[in-house]
Amino acid sequence: MSVKEEPILILVTGGTFDKEYNELTGELFFRDTHLKEMLALGRCRLPLDIRTLMMIDSLDMTNADRATIAENCSRVGEKKILITQGTDTMIETAKVIAESVKNKTIVLTGAMVPYTFGSSDGLFNLGSALAFVQTLSPGVYVAMNGRYFRHDQVRKNREKGEFDEMAQ
Amino acid sequence: MSVKEEPILILVTGGTFDKEYNELTGELFFRDTHLKEMLALGRCRLPLDIRTLMMIDSLDMTNADRATIAENCSRVGEKKILITQGTDTMIETAKVIAESVKNKTIVLTGAMVPYTFGSSDGLFNLGSALAFVQTLSPGVYVAMNGRYFRHDQVRKNREKGEFDEMAQ
Amino acid sequence: MSVKEEPILILVTGGTFDKEYNELTGELFFRDTHLKEMLALGRCRLPLDIRTLMMIDSLDMTNADRATIAENCSRVGEKKILITQGTDTMIETAKVIAESVKNKTIVLTGAMVPYTFGSSDGLFNLGSALAFVQTLSPGVYVAMNGRYFRHDQVRKNREKGEFDEMAQ
Amino acid sequence: MSVKEEPILILVTGGTFDKEYNELTGELFFRDTHLKEMLALGRCRLPLDIRTLMMIDSLDMTNADRATIAENCSRVGEKKILITQGTDTMIETAKVIAESVKNKTIVLTGAMVPYTFGSSDGLFNLGSALAFVQTLSPGVYVAMNGRYFRHDQVRKNREKGEFDEMAQ
Repeated sequence: MSVKEEPILILVTGGTFDKEYNELTGELFFRDTHLKEMLALGRCRLPLDIRTLMMIDSLDMTNADRATIAENCSRVGEKKILITQGTDTMIETAKVIAESVKNKTIVLTGAMVPYTFGSSDGLFNLGSALAFVQTLSPGVYVAMNGRYFRHDQVRKNREKGEFDEMAQ
Repeated sequence: MSVKEEPILILVTGGTFDKEYNELTGELFFRDTHLKEMLALGRCRLPLDIRTLMMIDSLDMTNADRATIAENCSRVGEKKILITQGTDTMIETAKVIAESVKNKTIVLTGAMVPYTFGSSDGLFNLGSALAFVQTLSPGVYVAMNGRYFRHDQVRKNREKGEFDEMAQ
Repeated sequence: MSVKEEPILILVTGGTFDKEYNELTGELFFRDTHLKEMLALGRCRLPLDIRTLMMIDSLDMTNADRATIAENCSRVGEKKILITQGTDTMIETAKVIAESVKNKTIVLTGAMVPYTFGSSDGLFNLGSALAFVQTLSPGVYVAMNGRYFRHDQVRKNREKGEFDEMAQ
Repeated sequence: MSVKEEPILILVTGGTFDKEYNELTGELFFRDTHLKEMLALGRCRLPLDIRTLMMIDSLDMTNADRATIAENCSRVGEKKILITQGTDTMIETAKVIAESVKNKTIVLTGAMVPYTFGSSDGLFNLGSALAFVQTLSPGVYVAMNGRYFRHDQVRKNREKGEFDEMAQ
């Protein structure tokens, strides 16, 4: 196994990515993550470990949840970590992680449309986030819209539903 | 625009990626590339220029075709180039480009299943290839299966339909 | 044109069928109907006229709305009418129409999952409803789950999300 | 169970409907039928029995194959039978069945695009064919393009990929 193939840990926290449509109530809800299905579709052959930490809407994510995510990033042996979560508070989570976790490459990604809906950006984002986590130097990043952003140089543009770079 | 946001050129050459099903004959054929549609689905916001060089099956790609691709890579101003082509001869094309093009990051990608079919790996591969082309140092690479490979350290495993790393 | 090919009128009223996902708010909403897109996908060659009467959730449908639908059914020249609406109050609408419209074959259908989501039953239901409206004798029917039901012999089983026949 | 709910037999013979893409060879092939998956997607609740007779391209269907299909139609107890097969020789099969099977409603359907590809008409055709087999009087019919045709009043328009009615 070459250097670039050191194992990657994926921490699942929920978000639009993994939402499903409840046909009895007409509401969106969480069941299991679709990460494995997505990785199979992408014919992904990376050495990956997938762990589900929580299954929540990022608007419901508390400081305690963020502490749990950061603590998991610190505790594990992997130096490369991908986190899936809702886009609404993705940057807040990135900042909390950056305060306590050093010397690891951590990339957060999500989706604007659930994977199970036809028009999802999820598979594209997953592909790019897995590539960024392999190649970027240690730090905490957000990967969306085909781009990567340092956790302290990004904001979500809620009108457009996309992420913008901003001067530090 | 930050350094990482220097413009990326996408050169389209065809391949399974862009094949479609002809419902009158039951055969696969090429019409236009689906790159724009795929980038829209991925909500991609990178500064990109897309140019179609040819629309062919990679088994039909000749040495003259490869020379054309390499020449285009040399001539253009962009330092970051993504090439879509069929997986069968992707490595040969990478080698030809590597002989003449230096100081640019060039990534080749493709798909095992056409984008227009439900089960395509195309969107995942496109996401990862666009991330690799932004972050890898100059050289010629193949991006498939969530991984990247140097052009001289990869072989296609035809039995499994995936790419393997091999010692130089 | 043979007898069976007399023109069919499709009256669109909204319902889950035509809901879309708003990626900025995470909510479902209505824009335009997807009927034309669905008929194109089905390679439908029937002589059809499509008219959008309203674009609402069937839980929001009022008695005045139902009167409008029934009035449209009466007024038009077509003897065969397909109505798309939400499943929650489909039977109520069928009953209102049956009170005032005679000598026409009217079929109501809908979907449990929006057409734009991958897992929709909409295309199947549309195919069966169009077949039923061509072949059933005058009356008002609900077409769901591959079945047809007389308006006065059906109930929606909300726990299962399907329609059951019941004795009159 | 009401009269309309007498059990329906589905005889699977292959055809474009059930073709899949072999990502190693780039060719289309048959594995198992997708009928059950399609019926689940349509939330179909009809009493059905599905039997696979063969899994072939309709261009490869022989007179012996057609005799087998007709014989199965005769032998079984069901009075309502749906047959899935390729569109190229669907009408020939219908004629062979009509010669020997009387007093049953038999509907043949298929698809222009495989179900596993995103743009398939298969689900629409299946919905309409199941509705026609419930409602048409005894005889042998082809159901395509939202329409039904008597076996002796239909021809396939190969240029357009659709079925036309013709005078007997």
